[in-house]
Amino acid sequence: MGAGLAGALLACLLGKAGHEVAVYERRPDPREKGFLGGRSINLALSARGIHALSLAGLAERVLNEAISMRGRMIHSVAGRLSFQPYSTNPRDAINSVSRGGLNEALLKKASGYAGVRYYFEHRCVGVDLERPAVTLSAAENRTVDADVVIGCDGAFSAVRGEMQRLDRFDCAHTYLEHGYKELTIPPAADGGFAMEPHALHIWPRGGFMMIALPNRDRSFTCTLFWPFAGPRSFEAVRSADDILRFFGVHFPDALALMPALAEEYLRNPIASLVTVRCAPWFHRDRVVLVGDAAHAIVPFYGQGMNAAFEDCVVLAESLDLFPHDRQVALQRYYGLRKTDADAIGDLAIANFLEMRDRVASPLFRLRKKSERVLHRLLPRWYTPLYNMVSFSRIPYAQARRRATQQRRIVVAILTVLLLLAVIGVVWLFLVLIAKST
Amino acid sequence: MGAGLAGALLACLLGKAGHEVAVYERRPDPREKGFLGGRSINLALSARGIHALSLAGLAERVLNEAISMRGRMIHSVAGRLSFQPYSTNPRDAINSVSRGGLNEALLKKASGYAGVRYYFEHRCVGVDLERPAVTLSAAENRTVDADVVIGCDGAFSAVRGEMQRLDRFDCAHTYLEHGYKELTIPPAADGGFAMEPHALHIWPRGGFMMIALPNRDRSFTCTLFWPFAGPRSFEAVRSADDILRFFGVHFPDALALMPALAEEYLRNPIASLVTVRCAPWFHRDRVVLVGDAAHAIVPFYGQGMNAAFEDCVVLAESLDLFPHDRQVALQRYYGLRKTDADAIGDLAIANFLEMRDRVASPLFRLRKKSERVLHRLLPRWYTPLYNMVSFSRIPYAQARRRATQQRRIVVAILTVLLLLAVIGVVWLFLVLIAKST
Repeated sequence: MGAGLAGALLACLLGKAGHEVAVYERRPDPREKGFLGGRSINLALSARGIHALSLAGLAERVLNEAISMRGRMIHSVAGRLSFQPYSTNPRDAINSVSRGGLNEALLKKASGYAGVRYYFEHRCVGVDLERPAVTLSAAENRTVDADVVIGCDGAFSAVRGEMQRLDRFDCAHTYLEHGYKELTIPPAADGGFAMEPHALHIWPRGGFMMIALPNRDRSFTCTLFWPFAGPRSFEAVRSADDILRFFGVHFPDALALMPALAEEYLRNPIASLVTVRCAPWFHRDRVVLVGDAAHAIVPFYGQGMNAAFEDCVVLAESLDLFPHDRQVALQRYYGLRKTDADAIGDLAIANFLEMRDRVASPLFRLRKKSERVLHRLLPRWYTPLYNMVSFSRIPYAQARRRATQQRRIVVAILTVLLLLAVIGVVWLFLVLIAKST
Repeated sequence: MGAGLAGALLACLLGKAGHEVAVYERRPDPREKGFLGGRSINLALSARGIHALSLAGLAERVLNEAISMRGRMIHSVAGRLSFQPYSTNPRDAINSVSRGGLNEALLKKASGYAGVRYYFEHRCVGVDLERPAVTLSAAENRTVDADVVIGCDGAFSAVRGEMQRLDRFDCAHTYLEHGYKELTIPPAADGGFAMEPHALHIWPRGGFMMIALPNRDRSFTCTLFWPFAGPRSFEAVRSADDILRFFGVHFPDALALMPALAEEYLRNPIASLVTVRCAPWFHRDRVVLVGDAAHAIVPFYGQGMNAAFEDCVVLAESLDLFPHDRQVALQRYYGLRKTDADAIGDLAIANFLEMRDRVASPLFRLRKKSERVLHRLLPRWYTPLYNMVSFSRIPYAQARRRATQQRRIVVAILTVLLLLAVIGVVWLFLVLIAKST
């Protein structure tokens, strides 16, 4: 269920393994009618996603069309820029890809496998978890039986909705106080990028922020993260005059690059930011959830798609390992992914606070710089958390644990050094006193 | 929506205030057909519930029919009994009441108000949150408009189900690993109670437990709390032989009092234990949730009904305070109740661990005893948490905060006493040395 990024990649992997896959999607075929909907225009592809795409034979092609972002470009209110590279290794970059382009590439790839068929403009209106079967609304309703129903149908999954009726199915939807709105920085007058393309741009303002990712057409898609209500909020800033005044005060350098700001602000919708957690992700040997349907996360670590792609790899691998016991396969998949999905869900929320409030502070910059130095000096021993998450495939939960250990060791070493320094100073003092008397 | 305990009490309070109230309930009228369903046979009524019933003019009557429980009676595996009184004040007791009897009394009381009408065997099949209106399935479906729809329809509320479709409605369902099954200890051969009636009986076994509350017919209703799966679980113990053997090992004194154990075990359902949290509990000035529909909690503090009754009191009071601005009334209600509902939800889970695992330990008993002594010596200054929750109307969250402060102060005083003792010993030692030299 669902031919978005997760559904399309999973169709590739299952098609390649020789499974019969019927993919139902409520939106029209983007290969014919252009890409419609989805939550954001571009996305950050990193190591986990690249690995999954390489298994589908698409990594090289997708990376060729992507724009690498090698660090954060911080914009101060005064328009001062400071670049914080993600890594000492210049190959460690996250990659801005177009959601629509990537989705189409995946759909085309999967359609090359004999077992894969698509049914677009088919909306899921019911799931029978026991049979299992799905009822689809197209020209008329019809019910289709399946060996296993795989819900790749996003944060508001209809498949999960049906599972929520089961006894002892844990489920939590949690919204941030903030929502977001997408805006555009078009190409410069000379046709080039209006800002540095190889960076993720951030305007951190404490309590709210804007970010921008480059597109292949040399525009940037900006995302304004803002509280829904309160003194500085979507609720408070409603008219064209309001928004121009607001940008003039808080994002003046961006305002100069956004000729259609007021028009876009009034036209584009405000989207909410939900974290979904549920347990378990499967029902017997019959139904299973993947990607946002199982664990929607907020976008601040750039890991939503990457985590979903990792799900697809582990699920395909598990089905392959246990061809004769699907329930064991689904249990293995869930067992391997649940803790990691919870971890990246937490990290994504924590990164929102970091990007919004701390990224601009000198102390934060000093810490990031020390992390880079440590990583360069002791690459085997010390890897910053962001790098483990974005540039490695260390499971998320393990990366978080390792980061905590690293921090503790650094604090311990600094404490010992401080103590030695104090002892040294005292010793020197005593020696001087002894000499003077 | 709903004529359970919360719905019936709220109908009393709103009827008394002169409102027009239509109460829809999917079950048949218990006044005609006897009480059907509900989660448990008897419940513990304490101070908050008694206060609410007194506002409805029912407290005296209900307490006359209740059996007071003045403490916990702990049953060891060997059958040894130890009684832990709840309070130094003998009037501080919780009261075992029959769910069915209390519900009928409330329904009868509310039906005395001109504005209150009942519609039994009307199932809610849809809620229009904006109009607002509810669609009810009885002989045929019909839709009824309302000024405000009040969801008193329990942990699996249809009204909340509709609110879950709203953007930015937070909601979490969390299940314990444990479920429960109700069993019976019938009256003794002489027609009297088979155990001490004025106590809540607990068989704590670490990882699982059984409790029993007295009924007016001199039976006890036992509740066995047990993991769903694992070595000692509902899953593992399935046959009549299994359960008799299990009780013989773990609850031998209870087994001797339960002639129909195997039959009841095989017949009675296993129920799950859910905590529901959501936010907000209201939609504009049109829809509001009360009791389990807003905040289902696990039963281990005996506060589910009491908390729901407090909701009813605050909601009726809020509607009375702001007769011309219902949204402000609903905001006041939610603002006053949300934090307290979250607090008692947490406390109820914590009390499960306490009852199951710690209640039998000597250290725990010493702590409880010290608490009682402190409370007797300094009644104004020190009140155990259980007593604040059960025998006062101090808001739950405030009670929890106060308990934390009390604990800190006690620890601080003990530390100072210990230090003084150490200093005293050292001083004595030095004096002795001085004398001996």
